[in-house]
Amino acid sequence: MGPHPAVAAIRLAVRRVLHDILNTLPTSGERPDRLAERLPSPLGSTLVAPPESPLVLVACSGGADSMALASALAFEAPRLGLRAGGITVDHGLQPGSDLRAEEVALRMRGLGLDPVESVSVDVGRDGGPEAAARDARYAALDAALDRHGAAAVLLGHTRDDQAETVLLGLARGSGIRSLSGMAAVSGAGGRYRRPFLHLDRQTARKACMVQSLPVWDDPHNTDPAYTRSRLRHEGLPALEKALGKGVVEALARTAQLSRDDADALDSWASQAEASVRDAAGLLECAKLYALPPAVRRRILRRAAIEAGAPAGSLFARHIEEVDRLITGWRGQGAINLPGRVVAQRQGGRLVIRQG
Amino acid sequence: MGPHPAVAAIRLAVRRVLHDILNTLPTSGERPDRLAERLPSPLGSTLVAPPESPLVLVACSGGADSMALASALAFEAPRLGLRAGGITVDHGLQPGSDLRAEEVALRMRGLGLDPVESVSVDVGRDGGPEAAARDARYAALDAALDRHGAAAVLLGHTRDDQAETVLLGLARGSGIRSLSGMAAVSGAGGRYRRPFLHLDRQTARKACMVQSLPVWDDPHNTDPAYTRSRLRHEGLPALEKALGKGVVEALARTAQLSRDDADALDSWASQAEASVRDAAGLLECAKLYALPPAVRRRILRRAAIEAGAPAGSLFARHIEEVDRLITGWRGQGAINLPGRVVAQRQGGRLVIRQG
Repeated sequence: MGPHPAVAAIRLAVRRVLHDILNTLPTSGERPDRLAERLPSPLGSTLVAPPESPLVLVACSGGADSMALASALAFEAPRLGLRAGGITVDHGLQPGSDLRAEEVALRMRGLGLDPVESVSVDVGRDGGPEAAARDARYAALDAALDRHGAAAVLLGHTRDDQAETVLLGLARGSGIRSLSGMAAVSGAGGRYRRPFLHLDRQTARKACMVQSLPVWDDPHNTDPAYTRSRLRHEGLPALEKALGKGVVEALARTAQLSRDDADALDSWASQAEASVRDAAGLLECAKLYALPPAVRRRILRRAAIEAGAPAGSLFARHIEEVDRLITGWRGQGAINLPGRVVAQRQGGRLVIRQG
Repeated sequence: MGPHPAVAAIRLAVRRVLHDILNTLPTSGERPDRLAERLPSPLGSTLVAPPESPLVLVACSGGADSMALASALAFEAPRLGLRAGGITVDHGLQPGSDLRAEEVALRMRGLGLDPVESVSVDVGRDGGPEAAARDARYAALDAALDRHGAAAVLLGHTRDDQAETVLLGLARGSGIRSLSGMAAVSGAGGRYRRPFLHLDRQTARKACMVQSLPVWDDPHNTDPAYTRSRLRHEGLPALEKALGKGVVEALARTAQLSRDDADALDSWASQAEASVRDAAGLLECAKLYALPPAVRRRILRRAAIEAGAPAGSLFARHIEEVDRLITGWRGQGAINLPGRVVAQRQGGRLVIRQG
């Protein structure tokens, strides 16, 4: 009898990603040349990959998604000749969070992961509580990857998280890039991997249950002070009630399609940009005018960022206003953009620079 | 003292569209050459454009949005030397709908519109009740445009309708074209115009109130049997609660950005298509492989539709499967698509035809 379908599903998802990581390891010299051996361990016998094998980490909060991910990594990695380790991040946002992080680390060791680390971070305030916690967490994961010389770190985001991310992007109204959610592969050299992006949260939870893995429910996930939590517990259920049960899947599919579309348009804009600059490198209004609006606005956005406008503060309405210097020219004055960047039309050229 | 801000807003929106219609009239001979005159009318004196002036119609259900639109058209059209008329469509879906349509026609005449028509349609069943009613309505509007030789018909869709349309498209999960909502200008020769697409429903309602225009609330709009009604009364309010009040505006902005992006990618695919066909007109797999996925999938979709697959039944998952003949070739067999269309790979070529 094989494993429970939920366990089979999480393992298959992780196995595919591990195969992909193996295929992208920089040199064949780093590929594992011998398989794992069955060695005695504190929990009885365990498959253990040789110490010189490439290492893959899992980022684990102790919640159902990342505990399921940790269990699947512990099972699959040694079978592919990879070592599996785990990191848990203590954000220090609740009393006793340090003890909980130690407990999560213990659970990961219990799964056979090695090395296992609990890392404390200081969460700043930039961009709100969720963004600040995320920034601190990724910085800690980056440091852990480097410290351990690991090939990648697996993140437990599910299709449900992806659907929520698409809706959060939709609320910004800033175009299809913000609808493209999280990537299955991201970070320098593809160091972040999200094996569960096509798996639903329910499957991860079920896999923990049938494997008798204790899980910890982060109170932030149900705290209505957090936008994502309100979306999860009120927004999405109401949308599903109105539009039908397929909404989460539709949102996740939208993310993938939007990402591909945004990538294609970015590459078009990048190619077109060279052709609309004059010998002095200035943007020629007449040539910009001839481009499709979608391509022109991307070039304007790139130019503003290049001139020093912070990408996060540059909204669609800013770019629309600059675009009107091209498409609705009636002698407008200079336009002020975030980061003290100024856009103005001068003698058929568009000049965008820090003022 | 000028008009109430809500009335000023609806008139400005209509005036802009009428200017645009005037600028796109086919020959200068059809342009109005003299302004309207103040003539005696049943309601006292009214501005009336000369009988040979171009005619613009309004489609009016008697609801707040389209009554506001009708009132603004009646006010603005004669000032630009245009005649203004109105059409109301009786869908025959409720007892007494014919009497109500006559009442709406009377109200339009009261606003000074001429000609005014009430048109009965037979609503079929294709595509569900909402789609069938819409198809019947647009067919009736097309016929009315032709019958009266009108330049355009104005439709009362607001920013709120646009936001709902984007969410309905999102639920299909079929990509950015379905996120692009309704166009401000559509139909053959730009015959459908939506002046209120950037205006909120509340402004239209307010404009009716301050002008003492009676409005009729369609019971369908609050009937939870209709997806759009559930979205309006439950889905969107819950999303606004989770994500903040700017959601409707963000959705409407997403529509515009998605439309521009989809247009640009369609034009790219259309240009790229010629370059990936061999001398016999067959699609070359190696050349398709080299294109960005977003462009390649659009070419595959066009080819499937050209071969006879009905656009409405062709989903993202169909195209993904055909795409794997290019990107994940491992000797797969033929793939069946809607409309008895078959896609298969033969000797480095992709053959898509009706089986």
